[in-house]
Amino acid sequence: MSTFRVLNQHDIKSVLEMKSVMNLVEDAYVFKAKKSASLFPMVFHEFHPGVADMDIKSGKITEADIFGLKLVSWFGENPSKGIPAVIGTILVLDITTGTPLGILSGEYITLMRTGAAAGIGAKYLAREESEELLIVGSGHVAPYAILSTLLAMDNIKRVTIYNDNSFDRAQTFSDSIKNKLFELISPYQESDASYYYELLKKIEISFVATDDIKLATQQADIIITATPSRKPLIQDIWVQPGTHISCLGSDMKGKQEIDEELFTHARIFVDDIDQSFDVGESEIPYLKGKFTKQDVIAEIGEVILGNGKGRLSDSDITIYDSTGISLQDLITANHILKIAKEKNVGQLADL
Amino acid sequence: MSTFRVLNQHDIKSVLEMKSVMNLVEDAYVFKAKKSASLFPMVFHEFHPGVADMDIKSGKITEADIFGLKLVSWFGENPSKGIPAVIGTILVLDITTGTPLGILSGEYITLMRTGAAAGIGAKYLAREESEELLIVGSGHVAPYAILSTLLAMDNIKRVTIYNDNSFDRAQTFSDSIKNKLFELISPYQESDASYYYELLKKIEISFVATDDIKLATQQADIIITATPSRKPLIQDIWVQPGTHISCLGSDMKGKQEIDEELFTHARIFVDDIDQSFDVGESEIPYLKGKFTKQDVIAEIGEVILGNGKGRLSDSDITIYDSTGISLQDLITANHILKIAKEKNVGQLADL
Repeated sequence: MSTFRVLNQHDIKSVLEMKSVMNLVEDAYVFKAKKSASLFPMVFHEFHPGVADMDIKSGKITEADIFGLKLVSWFGENPSKGIPAVIGTILVLDITTGTPLGILSGEYITLMRTGAAAGIGAKYLAREESEELLIVGSGHVAPYAILSTLLAMDNIKRVTIYNDNSFDRAQTFSDSIKNKLFELISPYQESDASYYYELLKKIEISFVATDDIKLATQQADIIITATPSRKPLIQDIWVQPGTHISCLGSDMKGKQEIDEELFTHARIFVDDIDQSFDVGESEIPYLKGKFTKQDVIAEIGEVILGNGKGRLSDSDITIYDSTGISLQDLITANHILKIAKEKNVGQLADL
Repeated sequence: MSTFRVLNQHDIKSVLEMKSVMNLVEDAYVFKAKKSASLFPMVFHEFHPGVADMDIKSGKITEADIFGLKLVSWFGENPSKGIPAVIGTILVLDITTGTPLGILSGEYITLMRTGAAAGIGAKYLAREESEELLIVGSGHVAPYAILSTLLAMDNIKRVTIYNDNSFDRAQTFSDSIKNKLFELISPYQESDASYYYELLKKIEISFVATDDIKLATQQADIIITATPSRKPLIQDIWVQPGTHISCLGSDMKGKQEIDEELFTHARIFVDDIDQSFDVGESEIPYLKGKFTKQDVIAEIGEVILGNGKGRLSDSDITIYDSTGISLQDLITANHILKIAKEKNVGQLADL
C-alpha cells in the first residue's frame, strides 16, 4: 500500500504556470534527445469512428525518476450531456520501484504543455525580430499557445486570429483574449512581481481577428496552427521566406493543417519522428510522397541541445510539427505532484 | 471534475471472493467471443532486462459499459527494500462518456483472476471425474488456482505440489495451504453459509508435496503450471491420455512451462490467440515450428459459449494457455467498484 495523491483540475490550476511548463517541456525534449527519456508505443482505439475514441500515450523519464501514461478520452457527444468532450487522466509512477505516485486530471496539463510547445518552437526556430504572430484556430489551446509564444519572443507587436469556420468566433476570441491572458499570468502577481510586470507589457499589444487567411499568412512572421482540420488551411505560396510555423493540431491519422508542398522546401522539425509520421502534420506529406524521415532536420530536443541546427538564415521557412508526446505530460505532472506535496494540495489516498 | 473511487488491497479483499471472480472471468471470456469486448495492443517496456519491467494491458467491455487498463510493474529488487516486486494498478472508465470511475490496487485482483482462469480451464476442458490435481509452482498464485479448481470440480481427492527449485518450499506450502484456503473461503461464512460448508468439505482432502515431477505428472488428471519458468518442467512423454493442463505462468516472451512436443498432439485452447502466440505458452512451440494459429482449437470463450468443442474424448490431452487478459482485470475491478459504492468502501476523490 502506497500513499498516492489525487489532483483535480482545480488543484492543478492553483499550482501551475506557463514559464515553468515551458522549462519542463524543454527539459523533456532534451532528455529525449539525450536518450534518458523515451516514448512507449501509443495505443489508440476508436469506439465509434468520428464520435468517440481514446488513446494511451506512455513513456519514461529516467532523469526525473518517473514513468507513466496519459489516457485521453474523446467523446464528441459529451457536451450535450454537460460533460467535456475531452477527458484526460495522467498516472505517474516511480521508476526506481514501480510504485504509483499519483493520478492527475489531464485537461489543464494538456492545454499548458501543448501551448508551451508552440512557444518553444518559436524560441528555437523563429527569427528573433519576429513581430507578427498569426494563430489559426481559436479553440481551447489558442490562449496557451499565444501566451507561450509571447513569453518566448520579445518583439511580438500584433497577434492575428483566424478561425476557418467562423469569423465571429475569431472576433469573440480576439475581444476576450487579453482578459484570458491576464488570468493566465495572474499567478506571477504574487510569486514574481517583476516578471508579472514584464508579462503585462508583453500582453499590451494588438489582437485582431481576420477573415483573410491569405493576407494574414503573408504578413506573419510566426504562425501557430491549432485546429482539428483535415485539410490544409495555409497554402504553400502564401508563406513568406523567414516564416516559422508551429503546428499543434495534428495528433491523429488524417489530420492536416498546412499545405504538404511546404514540406518540399521548408526546414522541418518534429517532437518525435515516429509519432509525427504516424499521426502528426508530417503524415500526409509523407503519404503523398513529398517528404521522408530522412528529410527531417532534427527532433526539437536535438536543436535545444545544440546537436541539430535550427534556422540557418533569415529566409528559411521553419516548421515545428508538435504532435504532443507523453513526456510533456509526465514531466509536468511530476512537477505538480512535487509542489502539491510541499503545499499540501489535493487528496491523499492509500492505493 | 468527476467523483472517482480509490480502492486499495485491503478494501478489495474485504469485498472479493472466488466464486464471483470465476463467474466474472467467464463473462469476460464470453463477451470477447461475442465481440462485445476486445483487447487493445499491449505495451511492454523493460527498464533493465531481467531486473525491472512494466506492461500496460488495456481493453473494453461494451457489455459492462467500461474500458480501461492495468499497468503492472515488476521490479525484482523491490523485496530487498521491503516493497513488493509486482505492483499493479487498474484504471476503469465509463465507456459511454470516457469518464474515469476509479483506480484500484491490482495485486489481489490479479491473483484472483489469474487463479480463476485455472479453474475455468478445468471446468470446461478436464474430465469431470478428475481426482488428482498437480500444481507446479508454489508461489503467490498457487492457492488461488487450487481454490478455483476445487470450486469448479467435484471429485478432486488429492492435490500434489511441486516446486522446481525447492522441495522444502513445496513442503511448506503443502503444510500451510489448508489454512490459506480456509482464509480465502471465509467471506462465505456469513454471506452464504451452505456454500461455505460445501467448500469446507472440498478442502478436506489430501495435500502433499513431491520432488518427483515425473511420477506426479503421470498420476495427475489435472495439472496447473504457475511458475516464471523459461524451460519446460513437464515432459511430453510423462503426460497421460486424458490429462488437462492449465498453464498460467507464461505471460512474457521467452517463458515456457511445458514441453513444446505436447503442442503437436494435444487439443490447445487459449484466452486470446494473439497474446498467447506473442507472450504465452504457445509462443515457444510456435517459434520452434511445432504449432501454428490454425492448430488452436478455440479461444476459451468460444468453448464456454458452445461455439468451440472442448474435450472430445476421455483420452484427449487438453491444454489451456491462459496468458491473462485485461478483460479479466477490468470486469473484476468494475464489479468491485459497484460493491464498494453500495458498501461505501474505499476513498472518494474528485478527479
